[in-house]
Amino acid sequence: MITSLVTGGAGFIGAHVSRELLKLGHHVVILDDLSGGYEENVPSEATFVQGSIMDHELLEKLFTEHKFDYVYHLAAYAAEGLSHFIKRFNYNNNLIGSVNLINESVKNKVKCFVFTSSIAVYGGLQPPMREDMVPHPEDPYGIAKLAVEQELKVTKEMFGLDYIIFRPHNVYGEYQNLGDKYRNVVGIFMNQLMQDNPLTIFGDGNQTRAFSYIGDLAPHIANSVNIRETYGEVINIGAEKEYTIKELAETVMETMGLEGKLRFVEARNEVTHAYADHSKAHRLFGTDTNHTLKQGLDKMVGWAKNTGIKKSQKFKNIEIIENLPPLWLED
Amino acid sequence: MITSLVTGGAGFIGAHVSRELLKLGHHVVILDDLSGGYEENVPSEATFVQGSIMDHELLEKLFTEHKFDYVYHLAAYAAEGLSHFIKRFNYNNNLIGSVNLINESVKNKVKCFVFTSSIAVYGGLQPPMREDMVPHPEDPYGIAKLAVEQELKVTKEMFGLDYIIFRPHNVYGEYQNLGDKYRNVVGIFMNQLMQDNPLTIFGDGNQTRAFSYIGDLAPHIANSVNIRETYGEVINIGAEKEYTIKELAETVMETMGLEGKLRFVEARNEVTHAYADHSKAHRLFGTDTNHTLKQGLDKMVGWAKNTGIKKSQKFKNIEIIENLPPLWLED
Ligand SMILES: NC(=O)c1ccc[n+]([C@@H]2O[C@H](COP(=O)([O-])OP(=O)(O)OC[C@H]3O[C@@H](n4cnc5c(N)ncnc54)[C@H](O)[C@@H]3O)[C@@H](O)[C@H]2O)c1
Ligand SMILES: NC(=O)c1ccc[n+]([C@@H]2O[C@H](COP(=O)([O-])OP(=O)(O)OC[C@H]3O[C@@H](n4cnc5c(N)ncnc54)[C@H](O)[C@@H]3O)[C@@H](O)[C@H]2O)c1
Repeated sequence: MITSLVTGGAGFIGAHVSRELLKLGHHVVILDDLSGGYEENVPSEATFVQGSIMDHELLEKLFTEHKFDYVYHLAAYAAEGLSHFIKRFNYNNNLIGSVNLINESVKNKVKCFVFTSSIAVYGGLQPPMREDMVPHPEDPYGIAKLAVEQELKVTKEMFGLDYIIFRPHNVYGEYQNLGDKYRNVVGIFMNQLMQDNPLTIFGDGNQTRAFSYIGDLAPHIANSVNIRETYGEVINIGAEKEYTIKELAETVMETMGLEGKLRFVEARNEVTHAYADHSKAHRLFGTDTNHTLKQGLDKMVGWAKNTGIKKSQKFKNIEIIENLPPLWLED
Repeated sequence: MITSLVTGGAGFIGAHVSRELLKLGHHVVILDDLSGGYEENVPSEATFVQGSIMDHELLEKLFTEHKFDYVYHLAAYAAEGLSHFIKRFNYNNNLIGSVNLINESVKNKVKCFVFTSSIAVYGGLQPPMREDMVPHPEDPYGIAKLAVEQELKVTKEMFGLDYIIFRPHNVYGEYQNLGDKYRNVVGIFMNQLMQDNPLTIFGDGNQTRAFSYIGDLAPHIANSVNIRETYGEVINIGAEKEYTIKELAETVMETMGLEGKLRFVEARNEVTHAYADHSKAHRLFGTDTNHTLKQGLDKMVGWAKNTGIKKSQKFKNIEIIENLPPLWLED
């Protein structure tokens, strides 16, 4: 029996990766502190442990108990724009937490460590982002992701721990946290529409992103450990086609069959265009025909309506208030 | 009155930078947890606070109380080779601690944040290392230093905090910690000689380093905040001339007037040649005639003999034992 740990498995991507691993016949242990995920997202066949990757004593126990073959490390707080204002939290949760897992993976001779980094490591480089470009992160979230990538490389050198690094971008779909006001514009729009609130857009809404349907990523992330050529690689993964945020707003309204106003607020410090080259993923996983935005949203909308409105919480421990987008101070 | 905070001011470089700042007329507050420094190193004119940069509540109080104009952030545990085995400690102390200071510096509008990064960010790149090379750290220590550099850059972008980054290498001189068995070969050799122990050398001793006398660095680090052109810059600083570790051993013995045996132990995973291009420092600070190794050691030796043998402690919380150099397991 192959046993895999999925951190963040009660979260959006983790919920999908866990289900794909179950399909592959793995025994799946999910570790999640439910800071951004929901216990309902955990598949019933998985073993669920509520706890934090910051708790290295818990990790020590878990690793000794389960003798994990593979670690899929997805737990993180991925609110990229907010990370400027919660630097300490960001590095603790996203870097120190990852290092705790790397330590245990070395000590317990895990066969492969799969890590979801992010397109954020590229920062404002000229798109399309290719894996061989020199990273240039522009926020603490991207810096932490890059440090974990580097940490995995030196750990392979020193201790032989194998790894696979994914750099996804703008993923959306079922199980997405609709209640986080700081991240994931697709979920934010749906939640606002269901509440009859205007859809908030930073700046003119002409910034573009290549929104990626989760169903096009999760099977590859799960199965990557079975493809030897992916070991030691950094792999962009996601959809090709870019849409403006305004186009996204319109497509979401159309798919949900709900009309909403657009509310434009002051632009924040963010990358204008971000899309990636996926030739490496296509080579490694075979060419995919990805869902179009409309197709992906169609699948997500039924779930979202069923899930219903999620009350958004303000992040409690903002470390620096200066320059925080005013929208994020609103209740 | 200009007030400066010097973190790690009870340590080696910090003790010198603090004295230079006092000469420049600053009021100096030293924050040091004495994990690697000595209260005796603190100049009597400085205000000494024993505490850790990990203690963000203490930092909050200190910054509010003193309204620092400048922060010289030197506190770190710089045992580069050991950092593979104490990853969590490394990132906590060297990255999270730095982030705590950056947070407070933003909130309290510090005029400039001076940070001692390290040549370690270059890793195994082809020397001479130039500041415009793409960093390639090869150990957790270097990764943490690079992350702090990147963090300073994004903080300048988002919040306007000015910074100056130094990348020193292989600094030696008075006030160096002679009792740390994991770092600073100059101090280790002196301590071994005084104890009549053989001088331990990793590998064949033909690896080279450009040993840099502290007196050639500290005045520039201290005065950098007065040179506008250094703001926002990354600056290599140190000596030009490389010596092999074997040459160093001989020069130390000669200078101390003590004979010792050489004990060669298994090579560890380290960079073979590391030296840096200093043309930028020369341009910014004026050309220096640096101390030769013999001249620098002459100045250090009197102090070292006076200080006497320091009992070396084993690092208490090694996180991974695998592949630890056996020498580091000895008492
Ligand atoms: N969604 C995207 O577009 C996207 C893009 C690039 C990278 N990623 C990365 O993919 C991973 C999953 O993202 P997601 O979109 O599913 O986010 P998510 O918030 O839905 O899932 C993250 C999960 O991690 C959990 N978690 C957070 N901190 C934890 C801790 N300290 N201990 C235990 N569990 C913790 C949360 O409770 C949550 O369930 C993250 O690493 C994220 O950085 C996501
Ligand atoms: N010595 C070198 O050759 C060299 C080379 C490159 C960079 N550096 C950097 O220069 C700085 C000073 O190095 P050094 O050689 O003087 O080392 P050192 O160990 O003599 O000084 C560091 C000081 O920081 C203190 N310290 C450590 N962790 C602390 C914490 N959490 N809170 C408060 N104080 C803490 C220690 O007690 C010590 O006094 C470090 O940042 C180091 O990484 C040194």
